[in-house]
Amino acid sequence: MTGARAPGRSRALPPGGTAAVVTTATLPAAPDTAYGRLVARFARLGALDDAIGTLDWDAQTMLPSGAADGRSAQLATLRVLRHEQLTAPEVEDLLDAAEADAASAAGILDAWAAANLREMRRLYRHAAAVPAELVEAASRANSACERAWRGARADDAFADVVPTLTEVVVCQRAVAAAKAAVFGIDPYDALLDGFEPSLTMATVTPLFDDLAVALPPLLDRVLAVQAAAPAPLSLEGPFPVAAQRALGEALMGRAGFDFARGRLDVSLHPFCGGAADDVRLTTRYDEADFTSSLMGILHETGHALYEQGLPTAWRHQPVGQARGMAMHESQSLIIEMQAGRSREFLTFLAPHLTAAFGGSGPAWEPTNLCRLYHRVGRGLIRVDADEISYPAHIILRTRLERALIDGALAPADLPAAWRDGMAELLGVTPPDDRSGCLQDIHWYCGAFGYFPTYTLGALVAAQLFAAAERDLPALPDALGDGDFGPLVGWLNRGVHALGSRLPAPEMVEAVTGATLGTAAFKRHLTRRYLGE
Amino acid sequence: MTGARAPGRSRALPPGGTAAVVTTATLPAAPDTAYGRLVARFARLGALDDAIGTLDWDAQTMLPSGAADGRSAQLATLRVLRHEQLTAPEVEDLLDAAEADAASAAGILDAWAAANLREMRRLYRHAAAVPAELVEAASRANSACERAWRGARADDAFADVVPTLTEVVVCQRAVAAAKAAVFGIDPYDALLDGFEPSLTMATVTPLFDDLAVALPPLLDRVLAVQAAAPAPLSLEGPFPVAAQRALGEALMGRAGFDFARGRLDVSLHPFCGGAADDVRLTTRYDEADFTSSLMGILHETGHALYEQGLPTAWRHQPVGQARGMAMHESQSLIIEMQAGRSREFLTFLAPHLTAAFGGSGPAWEPTNLCRLYHRVGRGLIRVDADEISYPAHIILRTRLERALIDGALAPADLPAAWRDGMAELLGVTPPDDRSGCLQDIHWYCGAFGYFPTYTLGALVAAQLFAAAERDLPALPDALGDGDFGPLVGWLNRGVHALGSRLPAPEMVEAVTGATLGTAAFKRHLTRRYLGE
Repeated sequence: MTGARAPGRSRALPPGGTAAVVTTATLPAAPDTAYGRLVARFARLGALDDAIGTLDWDAQTMLPSGAADGRSAQLATLRVLRHEQLTAPEVEDLLDAAEADAASAAGILDAWAAANLREMRRLYRHAAAVPAELVEAASRANSACERAWRGARADDAFADVVPTLTEVVVCQRAVAAAKAAVFGIDPYDALLDGFEPSLTMATVTPLFDDLAVALPPLLDRVLAVQAAAPAPLSLEGPFPVAAQRALGEALMGRAGFDFARGRLDVSLHPFCGGAADDVRLTTRYDEADFTSSLMGILHETGHALYEQGLPTAWRHQPVGQARGMAMHESQSLIIEMQAGRSREFLTFLAPHLTAAFGGSGPAWEPTNLCRLYHRVGRGLIRVDADEISYPAHIILRTRLERALIDGALAPADLPAAWRDGMAELLGVTPPDDRSGCLQDIHWYCGAFGYFPTYTLGALVAAQLFAAAERDLPALPDALGDGDFGPLVGWLNRGVHALGSRLPAPEMVEAVTGATLGTAAFKRHLTRRYLGE
Repeated sequence: MTGARAPGRSRALPPGGTAAVVTTATLPAAPDTAYGRLVARFARLGALDDAIGTLDWDAQTMLPSGAADGRSAQLATLRVLRHEQLTAPEVEDLLDAAEADAASAAGILDAWAAANLREMRRLYRHAAAVPAELVEAASRANSACERAWRGARADDAFADVVPTLTEVVVCQRAVAAAKAAVFGIDPYDALLDGFEPSLTMATVTPLFDDLAVALPPLLDRVLAVQAAAPAPLSLEGPFPVAAQRALGEALMGRAGFDFARGRLDVSLHPFCGGAADDVRLTTRYDEADFTSSLMGILHETGHALYEQGLPTAWRHQPVGQARGMAMHESQSLIIEMQAGRSREFLTFLAPHLTAAFGGSGPAWEPTNLCRLYHRVGRGLIRVDADEISYPAHIILRTRLERALIDGALAPADLPAAWRDGMAELLGVTPPDDRSGCLQDIHWYCGAFGYFPTYTLGALVAAQLFAAAERDLPALPDALGDGDFGPLVGWLNRGVHALGSRLPAPEMVEAVTGATLGTAAFKRHLTRRYLGE
């Protein structure tokens, strides 16, 4: 029942390219200043976040079936206390005083502390913008809708969820309006800001519009190429769970996961959670097919390396946290999609697979593994989508959720709008709502503004990987040796160690030398799938 | 990784004897009264307690080695928040108002609600009695001393722990004095009250004095009888962990443990923790000897059944909690010592052991199992002691800790006092402090007033079991069939379902018809060990 221990990874890190924006972090300020008192207050919030994260993990991995209501009460209580601690009147007074101190005596806060104060203000504004009654109403609506959604999805009965979804949308529109008024931005942008700070649709829309034009013809070409090539051979199981877990842990160790500060467990829906210095990721094993769980472990390991690489001097402070969900997704995708599914790494992996599972023959050759891991298609389900068609799923959801928040689309009209959008963007139409607008939990638990971060993460991952290849000429060889060290070291210096020091667009520009765009992503796709 | 599920237990419960003091519980009061607001406040505290209990469990079962400091910070934060929530000024105002309401309009609170209000006041007084600076100083002293103790015990260097232990004693004397002033009782009684409310040394001392006279000659007689009988035969292993766990879970299921609201896991020090409706117990397996782990599982199951049997209508309210540590220990000991080690149950168990481990021959016969499980001796270590010599360990600790709190004994003089006491009470002298006054963690983490509850629990268990035998004539037959149902049903009605409705001495008297005494315990020992 205790976490396995991995041997320490050895890293021979090359000097950084443009990555090292800031490499040192100073300790928080003296406790007798306004800023120092804020540091103490946010340390308490950080400990609460850790407790919440660990109890969330437990709910998905360990919780007995009859304990769900009790756990919900525990988490609700901790979240209320967290909100009260963050929005207490003295916090605004301290923020005002600390900002006045900083303005009147330049240099009293160094750049890290100034960024920390900026992030404190941002978190306070997000929390305080929403009246307590609205927080409570939204929380109630989300819980009721999530329950209704589980039933509606099982029964393929979208109408059953319309009343509670309507209530969720009413609440989220009110939340968006309240935050928009405080931040002085568009309501949907205010929601997006809660998931990836400083990112707005002014940035997102041109990127998504470009992908919506470029990807359909690319998908057509790749499908034609794959149809003309030999079909991938199936890998025949069974693949025992113990062997899958051992292989997964070995890969985690290779990627630099620190098992003294984290674990690998099992849950129905894989995720990366837990706490600072206690990063817990999960997978789900299928003894008939190891391929999905194995890449899933690499994906969650990417998230985990981000958490484990955050600046320890700023642990539990806002500036010491991972930036936003787009940056987080970029870290999972660069490990899974860019590195893990590269021809170089799959070639390294092949003999380890045969050793782990006793397979042999052409199905276990690197060429076939690449065919298996590079298959594309026009699917209906986002979580099963390949990396070429995935953005279409996200673009559709972004359009629809923005229309819901703007009031241009009524919840009852979602199924029709979904079918139209799928036909337009991907050329397929779901036969039912279960494989359509009922497939994802996000809206039904009130998470509006989250979806865009998936594809933004893919764009960031591709752009970061291209920059890493430029800075690290030996990167392909390292991946061919199964060595993630150079890549992870580069990410650590350019991304992980920065915490929330910079907004995501500035961080991407600082580390890659270019503004966030679609070029690297498109180049990656044409190279991998068309060999161009 | 998910909890095993046990088939539902079937219980055919006979009507209760004197057990059913109160069998119904009403729902908490309306939220617009002072009492109703207190109910809401204490529900929040209960959820916090659940969160703390679950994170404590996780720390001992799941925590990666590098995450200990973070977990300490989480728990410290939750405990500070809990203390703030309990001692907030409005709580005293609400208590005053609710008590005035209850006094001015008799009947506004039913007996359960009145007991709930009484317990709220008690918890508030315990928490508010101690100034915040003293809470913090005691917490710091306890942490420092516990660390020092681990080193001192490993090195058998008592002198190393004297400075921090002195600090702990100074703090605990101050805590005791502060509580004594509020409660108007003796300082040591004030500490005892924190572990078993309403129990005082005026009750404890005559009981312990009686045992100190009666047990030494009894131990002499039993040792002589056992020396004259054949020595127990050893059970030869190895005993695989999986088989031990399966057997342990089967016994838990027989005892009525609800796996939908709890789990069994592994930890270095076995305990029963977790949360309401999520009771998590642990054991430690030794593949060379299953006997200790198996009885340990039954012991923790006794604790767990108490928690799982508490009145659900009062979940998270003070009156809905288990009474105190003496009552809790009585529930573990009645399942382990009274029922689990009875000749009837061991006779039932024998063929299950041979089936689980493949053993055969005379060592696996019931007679030898009884010899193994009924061995007594003059040991130095409390946790390894048999039930005849165990009280001597407790009487010694109670005398010494009372002298420490009264100021009659200096921490530096503990080793000598320990050796003298062991010689007097048990006739053995430890060769070093590691097997003497350094063996238990309690004092070194500030837990003064806890030790007496172990032996009080043994007395209560014996008195309860005698009453159960009187009320349930078929009890021995049921245990011979491996059926805990009648006993546990009786305990549920007489103890578990009462929560904290009554003080422990009143509960014991109500359910057994006699005041708490030593007679039943002594009768149990002479019957089991001398066949008289």
